[in-house]
Amino acid sequence: MIAITFPDASVREFPKGTTPLAVAQSISEGLARNVLSAQFNNTTVEVTTPLEEDGSLKLFTWNDAEGKTAFWHSSAHVLAQAIKALYPDAKLTIGPAIENGFYYDVDFGEHSFTEKELAAVEKQMLAFAREKFAFSMRMASKKEALAFYEQEANPYKVELIENLEDGTISFCDHADFTDLCRGGHLPHTGFIKAVKLLNVAGAYWRGDETKPQLTRIYGISFPKQKELTAYLELIEEAKKRDHRKLGKELELFTFSEKVGQGLPLWLPKGTALRERLENFLKAAQKKAGYEQVISPHIGNIELYKTSGHYEKYGADSFQPIETPAEGEMFLLKPMNCPHHCEIYKSRPWSYRELPKRYAEFGTVYRYEQSGELHGLTRVRGFTQDDAHIFCTPDQLDEEFKKVIDLVLYVFSSLGFEEFTAQVSLRDPEKPEKYIGSLENWERAENAIVNAAKAKNLNYVIETGEAAFYGPKLDFMVKDALGRKWQLGTIQVDYNLPERFDLTYKGSDNELHRPIMIHRAPFGSMERFVAILLESTGGNFPLWLTPNQVNILCVSEKHENYARKVLNELENNEIRALLDNRNETIGKKIREAELSKVPFMIIVGEKEAESNQISVRRHQQGDQGSMDVPSFIALVKEEMSKSIYKFASE
Amino acid sequence: MIAITFPDASVREFPKGTTPLAVAQSISEGLARNVLSAQFNNTTVEVTTPLEEDGSLKLFTWNDAEGKTAFWHSSAHVLAQAIKALYPDAKLTIGPAIENGFYYDVDFGEHSFTEKELAAVEKQMLAFAREKFAFSMRMASKKEALAFYEQEANPYKVELIENLEDGTISFCDHADFTDLCRGGHLPHTGFIKAVKLLNVAGAYWRGDETKPQLTRIYGISFPKQKELTAYLELIEEAKKRDHRKLGKELELFTFSEKVGQGLPLWLPKGTALRERLENFLKAAQKKAGYEQVISPHIGNIELYKTSGHYEKYGADSFQPIETPAEGEMFLLKPMNCPHHCEIYKSRPWSYRELPKRYAEFGTVYRYEQSGELHGLTRVRGFTQDDAHIFCTPDQLDEEFKKVIDLVLYVFSSLGFEEFTAQVSLRDPEKPEKYIGSLENWERAENAIVNAAKAKNLNYVIETGEAAFYGPKLDFMVKDALGRKWQLGTIQVDYNLPERFDLTYKGSDNELHRPIMIHRAPFGSMERFVAILLESTGGNFPLWLTPNQVNILCVSEKHENYARKVLNELENNEIRALLDNRNETIGKKIREAELSKVPFMIIVGEKEAESNQISVRRHQQGDQGSMDVPSFIALVKEEMSKSIYKFASE
Repeated sequence: MIAITFPDASVREFPKGTTPLAVAQSISEGLARNVLSAQFNNTTVEVTTPLEEDGSLKLFTWNDAEGKTAFWHSSAHVLAQAIKALYPDAKLTIGPAIENGFYYDVDFGEHSFTEKELAAVEKQMLAFAREKFAFSMRMASKKEALAFYEQEANPYKVELIENLEDGTISFCDHADFTDLCRGGHLPHTGFIKAVKLLNVAGAYWRGDETKPQLTRIYGISFPKQKELTAYLELIEEAKKRDHRKLGKELELFTFSEKVGQGLPLWLPKGTALRERLENFLKAAQKKAGYEQVISPHIGNIELYKTSGHYEKYGADSFQPIETPAEGEMFLLKPMNCPHHCEIYKSRPWSYRELPKRYAEFGTVYRYEQSGELHGLTRVRGFTQDDAHIFCTPDQLDEEFKKVIDLVLYVFSSLGFEEFTAQVSLRDPEKPEKYIGSLENWERAENAIVNAAKAKNLNYVIETGEAAFYGPKLDFMVKDALGRKWQLGTIQVDYNLPERFDLTYKGSDNELHRPIMIHRAPFGSMERFVAILLESTGGNFPLWLTPNQVNILCVSEKHENYARKVLNELENNEIRALLDNRNETIGKKIREAELSKVPFMIIVGEKEAESNQISVRRHQQGDQGSMDVPSFIALVKEEMSKSIYKFASE
Repeated sequence: MIAITFPDASVREFPKGTTPLAVAQSISEGLARNVLSAQFNNTTVEVTTPLEEDGSLKLFTWNDAEGKTAFWHSSAHVLAQAIKALYPDAKLTIGPAIENGFYYDVDFGEHSFTEKELAAVEKQMLAFAREKFAFSMRMASKKEALAFYEQEANPYKVELIENLEDGTISFCDHADFTDLCRGGHLPHTGFIKAVKLLNVAGAYWRGDETKPQLTRIYGISFPKQKELTAYLELIEEAKKRDHRKLGKELELFTFSEKVGQGLPLWLPKGTALRERLENFLKAAQKKAGYEQVISPHIGNIELYKTSGHYEKYGADSFQPIETPAEGEMFLLKPMNCPHHCEIYKSRPWSYRELPKRYAEFGTVYRYEQSGELHGLTRVRGFTQDDAHIFCTPDQLDEEFKKVIDLVLYVFSSLGFEEFTAQVSLRDPEKPEKYIGSLENWERAENAIVNAAKAKNLNYVIETGEAAFYGPKLDFMVKDALGRKWQLGTIQVDYNLPERFDLTYKGSDNELHRPIMIHRAPFGSMERFVAILLESTGGNFPLWLTPNQVNILCVSEKHENYARKVLNELENNEIRALLDNRNETIGKKIREAELSKVPFMIIVGEKEAESNQISVRRHQQGDQGSMDVPSFIALVKEEMSKSIYKFASE
């Protein structure tokens, strides 16, 4: 008998040689039907692997990331099997599971494989899957393994095997198909009920452009057809919501090769949107006792030597700016904190004056490789909604909690109701990665964990994910499509106050060191607008949307009355456009619906005579007639729902 | 007889050998008493120089810049005479008139001259002046001139003479004093009724630090004592209003050596002030049809090669920023226009969509020598209230006039009622200084002159003062002390649209080139805040001032009522502070007066009971009791006087 320990720490005895599948069966028939893969003593095993010793066992289903990985890894085998069945001369290389699905890189030789052929491969995969072929692992000697692929004339697998050590090489067989493999499969192919091959791309062998070009086939598979359907709809929806596409369609931002990759140019509508976001946060910050400051976008190299950033932003960064004065050098600022330290340092402070909370929409520049740039989410210049709080040790916990309040207020105002938090701590094994004393790190880490607990955040701790200058609390929100996005960050910093020799006079009349909190609820304006676009699909919250109302004239006779309405709305700071084109009212309504404007006002004979307006809402149709003041009250009420509920009020 | 032509084009005959003074006498006794200097055929002459031929004559009094120059030039002679009388071993070098007064650089040998000695020199100058010594010019040969100063053992004058051509050398004698001189004096020293020697500074001979250090004595003189008194009061007042001093006292901005010289850090109060200015201009611009955009603070070097700026910002500028990618270089942006051209270029335009007016508070960086940096008026990084208008040729005149309207609105809103304009044209003799075709320059210059005429501006034309890329219209305002400051600028540009190949589709369906207008009513936020500080002495217009109201509690018993008042003001967006310190009400009022807060509200027993407030105004005292809504209405009324009168409404 062997003792098996389960994740809930319970222990049960099983006969030696029992399999994970048998263990699942002993728990419930349902689990046995759903178990996809297993880990034994933290190593991936097959669900059919006999267990020969005491150990801890984890069983995975489709609901676990590990279950999905086994599912997609197994699907890649079936893809390879189907390819070999349809293209016997094709040479297989590698085919891993990825975050969503799997791929296989194939050398089709002279044949030029196109997306048109995917349907036939898909069909063959499903046919094989239905056969419920069992996956079975087997060890092979290096010699045997090489002989197998030499006989197949597959130089790729030969190269892979040559780099493996004898005694560590294994194959996976199912039906008459065999592939070099380290294991981690479904019990059999029958689990795979739905397959979609998504696209075909070029890929170099081993990612090296001097080596042969292969054909990469991407696919995804599911245990149920309806899950595949839902996934494909999600993909379709995500494509529609791609912020690069929406940003162009809504004329929010653009890029120019001449200005430089990764350096966004904000167009008028995007600028108006961004300014509204900034003003919203400014107002919230003002109430929370923040003060705005402005600092330059460069700093003398000495500033960054003092802060420690100079060592961190080296050869792979924007290089220093020289000047006509010999030895004088400036850096494009990668962070705002050193400047804010110098602002704090511009006069002496008493403990009675703290905390000081300096906020700045500060544009910073960091060099990213051109291949890593992506729309507004990976850029080379971005504006942080940055602030630095300088406080006494007594104030730290309270201040940290206030920052959490502010961040949560921002999220809820923008409709992000579901979020998780990540506490990033240092990796104690790699002290060389971090600046600052061990003692300071411990104090900072404790402050964050305590605040996260006190605020009942749904958080995970990640060791080794801290910034080089301090631990942090990051927020992740989930959007309407269930996708996770990283947003705001809060960081405790004992280092910069030390490096800049920042002080305040305590009640004991002695000089003390303040503590610094870095925070940015949005993260950056660029990234945040991208996330807002992707998560709302351009249907921004009413208070934020570029244009709140379209006024549609039934005919040009009513233009005067329409202008009067427009004027009244504008005087009440409601953003409205007049559509007085010579088009039918039906066409105007359809176009307004497409443009996602939240309200339409229709103005015709009846309305002009009765001094009323007819109101429609986006996707909700006719809302009846009312007078303009009632409409204004309605719009203001809607707006106030989201933005005027600041926690500290 | 000779024919003399006067500035009004009238011609009169005088005997050959008549002097300018005699001509003045023939016009009026008053003029003869006041004439200080003269020009004959556009050459400076003495008022006692006999006129020997036909020609045009200008006579100058104290009211002319040329009159003041002669006055201060003559005063420098008297200073030199006094120095030689009191310090016979002192060696004179040069002593010109300057914008305000004059100086003389002296080698005092072993003696170390200090400011304590100025009073005695002044006294001696006045004694000599009272003697009414006539100034008299005389030609000398180079040999004579050298002999004179060799005998005086004065190597400086010897060096000066050695560089002059024989036949062009002249001396000026008065009393027993002689100086090397080109002429342009008062009739006699008696005109100098008031003298003040202002300060002593070090100066190298010929400005070359390898040469001997001299003592520079600065002074100023006037025809009347009361003019000197007024001038010294002005200087005193200007010192109090020095924006660097006020900026520190009012905690508006600071500088840090570590961040870098000339790179301002805006403190919270300064940032709030600047943001109010920006929001004021944004609102006016929105009404005038401008759209805000945002662009990065760097641009690829290719952008500036296209724009032509790269050639202009060379070795004496911030140097290019290299990156890890070979050959890739960025420049800190010295101007926003190339970025705005790329924004314009991000999509095609029809003539029906023009003009496009892109506005940005764009921070730019230009390297200034550290010796030239001065507070906020000469900096290395500054934020322009920039905008670029892209329009058709048909729209140019109208657009240019609209920009003038906007600029005038801004000036009047900020209390600058008196201003002049300068039209800066190219120097036709130096075409190599400018980029762009002759034809484009002519069209642009005409547009500016026509608009200035149409708007009845009080303008002067300055040839050779244009920017390298186009002609411009600059505005100069006069402050309360009568000092002139350069403010906003408007420029017409045919070059950048050409260089960036900007186009729009005309009504003929063909592509045409738009015209670009650059404009900045404030010039830069830094410079403008400096000017506002200097001209208002910190007494900002009500709508702009950081703190509008101080609420002064008579005792702590009334704090609750005071907080209620504060709340009501804040809800009405009136900026107020509560002074609830344990101090007498008299002390609180005195301190509020010193802080220049426009309104004080006094809250005590009587006010709390009657639900009223007592109101005081800065420098105007008690305004009686009223209820809070009346006070709010009063403040809003005052504010609206200055900022809501936008011309286009």
